[in-house]
Amino acid sequence: MNLLFDERLDGELPRRDKAEVLAELQTALPGMTLLHREEDLRPFECDGLAAYRVLPMLVALPSDLDQVVTLMRRCHELGVPVVTRGAGTGLSGGALPLERGVLLVMSRFQRILSIDPEARIARVQPGVRNLAISEAAAPHGLYYAPDPSSQIACSIGGNVAENAGGVHCLKYGLTVHNVLALEIVTLEGERMRLGGEALDAPGFDLLALFNGSEGMLGVVTEVTVKLLPKPETAKVLMASFDDVGKAGQAVGDIIAAGIVPGGLEMMDNLAIRAAEDFIHAGYPVEAEAILLCELDGVEADVDDDVDTVRGVLESAGATDIRLARDEAERARFWSGRKNAFPAVGRISPDYYCMDGTIPRRALPEVLGTIAALSTEYDLRVANVFHAGDGNMHPLILFDANREGELERAEALGGRILEACVAAGGSITGEHGVGREKINQMCVQFPTGELTTFHAVKAAFDPVGLLNPGKNIPTLARCAEFGAMHVHHGELPHPELPRF
Amino acid sequence: MNLLFDERLDGELPRRDKAEVLAELQTALPGMTLLHREEDLRPFECDGLAAYRVLPMLVALPSDLDQVVTLMRRCHELGVPVVTRGAGTGLSGGALPLERGVLLVMSRFQRILSIDPEARIARVQPGVRNLAISEAAAPHGLYYAPDPSSQIACSIGGNVAENAGGVHCLKYGLTVHNVLALEIVTLEGERMRLGGEALDAPGFDLLALFNGSEGMLGVVTEVTVKLLPKPETAKVLMASFDDVGKAGQAVGDIIAAGIVPGGLEMMDNLAIRAAEDFIHAGYPVEAEAILLCELDGVEADVDDDVDTVRGVLESAGATDIRLARDEAERARFWSGRKNAFPAVGRISPDYYCMDGTIPRRALPEVLGTIAALSTEYDLRVANVFHAGDGNMHPLILFDANREGELERAEALGGRILEACVAAGGSITGEHGVGREKINQMCVQFPTGELTTFHAVKAAFDPVGLLNPGKNIPTLARCAEFGAMHVHHGELPHPELPRF
Repeated sequence: MNLLFDERLDGELPRRDKAEVLAELQTALPGMTLLHREEDLRPFECDGLAAYRVLPMLVALPSDLDQVVTLMRRCHELGVPVVTRGAGTGLSGGALPLERGVLLVMSRFQRILSIDPEARIARVQPGVRNLAISEAAAPHGLYYAPDPSSQIACSIGGNVAENAGGVHCLKYGLTVHNVLALEIVTLEGERMRLGGEALDAPGFDLLALFNGSEGMLGVVTEVTVKLLPKPETAKVLMASFDDVGKAGQAVGDIIAAGIVPGGLEMMDNLAIRAAEDFIHAGYPVEAEAILLCELDGVEADVDDDVDTVRGVLESAGATDIRLARDEAERARFWSGRKNAFPAVGRISPDYYCMDGTIPRRALPEVLGTIAALSTEYDLRVANVFHAGDGNMHPLILFDANREGELERAEALGGRILEACVAAGGSITGEHGVGREKINQMCVQFPTGELTTFHAVKAAFDPVGLLNPGKNIPTLARCAEFGAMHVHHGELPHPELPRF
Repeated sequence: MNLLFDERLDGELPRRDKAEVLAELQTALPGMTLLHREEDLRPFECDGLAAYRVLPMLVALPSDLDQVVTLMRRCHELGVPVVTRGAGTGLSGGALPLERGVLLVMSRFQRILSIDPEARIARVQPGVRNLAISEAAAPHGLYYAPDPSSQIACSIGGNVAENAGGVHCLKYGLTVHNVLALEIVTLEGERMRLGGEALDAPGFDLLALFNGSEGMLGVVTEVTVKLLPKPETAKVLMASFDDVGKAGQAVGDIIAAGIVPGGLEMMDNLAIRAAEDFIHAGYPVEAEAILLCELDGVEADVDDDVDTVRGVLESAGATDIRLARDEAERARFWSGRKNAFPAVGRISPDYYCMDGTIPRRALPEVLGTIAALSTEYDLRVANVFHAGDGNMHPLILFDANREGELERAEALGGRILEACVAAGGSITGEHGVGREKINQMCVQFPTGELTTFHAVKAAFDPVGLLNPGKNIPTLARCAEFGAMHVHHGELPHPELPRF
């Protein structure tokens, strides 16, 4: 993937002398860890999108709020851009450093500040790992619902920045639906509290605005999240289909039957075979597609729902339906799904993970389009995704060492995203825009919307020093990219340019 | 309630010659209804907060999107402020007209555009009544969850503007949690689509920002809402208490027991007596407080929950617990609650309805504070409110014809809101800020937050023509008001100025 625009972006930013900035920050923050030698900076050159790499000018590792405030003030005064990074697990390059910027790493903010089991609230620092919140809440029978695949490693601050989802977000919502309040520090070093324990807050909903803002509006320094009671029971059905479209249709049928599963995941044959070969989950390797449907809640309720879903799956033409007999089998079924990405990694030298969202009803159609495009571009595509909320993750298999395959994979990826947008969907589900999808934003949004995004950004950061070049493309970039405006699912041009 | 600031506000706005504006708009929009004679304007001089009245310069009643676009463009060009109004049922004066502005009334946008039972989505025009959505969805076994008391009359566009709640918002969320997409028209007459059917959208969350923005960012011209399946069954428990604090404690206990009731409402003795006298709901008139707890869902599940809640209520010291025997009794129990405001209106010449939100755990304490303040100010206060989400509606009873009572009621109201903020709550739960709470916003938010609100407003409306003087106070107003900044529930000064 090309980094041309990175270089150009850095070229547009003010060039500050590194030694001078280092000296200024060392003087202002004598107690803060500040990395500047190349070998110390190297581990921070990328996040989870490792194809994009930039060595930051400096890496700051503050350990308290005062240091964050002072750092932001000084960077603002010096005109040095700041990119904030959590655990670095993001998949869209949202925490990709800038050659001329400071990388602000929040990993030392590791404290769980309080857990209130009665109010079902946890107040934590942004560097706390997603799973650590649930572990801390477990003695009270509570947990934090959003569960991105990276939940062992990813931090809640990064979850807020990317509005992270996960297997359970169909039923329990995205990060934005599970965060009650944020403490933030602005570019100018001012502290603000957004939201609160009350259901609604007066004024504009800056809390929702911050979720998914990818570090462009401020630095998250504290997060208050909702905790939920652990469901009494959870059961998983696995249904096999001899046709991908039928499985896609069954997804809509389940929702239309009034069921909201805790998780509703789909895998196609290529993904099934790869996962089975790796994990031995007990998947039916002859099936064209499987659905995994988890139902959670009170025992009696779950049993009713299992019966209803079984009926729907039969009507939709499932060739086999299995209920996980026990907790061990349930864990095995999920393990295959959760390891599907590395499993696919075993059968192909390279793969490219897409992340688009479409309305559920469009699943059969878009799956058909992907199959046709796979043939057209002569590249295998494995589908493994959050079917219930229409969040697709087609994995394009290729070999970067074979002439032209990377380019074909990129072109195919572009066509798949085009199909998502044309079906009324969006270019990203849960991985964010970051650096990766910056050009696709020109496709997703007309000029009016982009202008409004920039104006909102300017409300927090009028000089554009917070994570420049991510999330919201400049109008100049879109003009250069040959911006084609897609509105209401209609593409004015049949072709989507490469990215 | 004083209107001093209205006059001042209008004084700050550009004065355009009425005849000239009328002629301009008539020329630009020959087919649109445009009211200009005093007798035609009179019905629009206030919304549900009838104490505040201003005759608008003109009233525009467009009937299609093109008219809205043209109207906004012309008003922008002419520099004429625009206040948008839905059904006019709002309780905070959000749709109070401006003497120098156009009142844009969206009541003719009455069409239900589509209902998709499979995707569980309704696409409607903004003038559609809240209840009409549920009525239209009923044949599919679906309904629209947020149910403000005014749901027979209020329109979905107004619900979005105020982020309306209702009895069921504890379980099913506010308007923002039930709206998937909006079509809006900006001040400059540009159309935009915010959100979509997908769970998440890239870019900043302008959809959430629009909910509760009180007409300050644009005009809502279409709303796409989630529909939910009607619960299989709903049962209501009524518990009596000999002490208000015990009832408040029971609310927290129910939630802490892992139950999320469909509705959890509280009434104190004064409200109970007034409602019983009016509706004959079968309420225990000797009780100091009652809780109404509705549990909805699948039959077996609801029965389990009824048992659990009954146990919690007993432990909390309920003196009597009754389960509504049938649908008729359930309806009667709710009828008393839903008619509590008019019932209180029958026992007092005037009443002033407050709307503050506090964390649930603070209920016993704040109820105690209200009782003490009621004695101190020698005015009766009836409490009837959404206890489950800590949204209080103290009704202050007074007689405006008795010297000084209105002023005492206002002062008492200020003290009650002060107590809400000091307990970590907010100055409004579901009624919005509008014109009524504009000064309290200076108390709720420090200068930094207010500055950010203004910057966000400017992202959509840099010239300040959309509903000026509502929702977000100017810094000048706060300075004049003697802005005391409350942050994290701490009041720097013990007294809250009158409003």
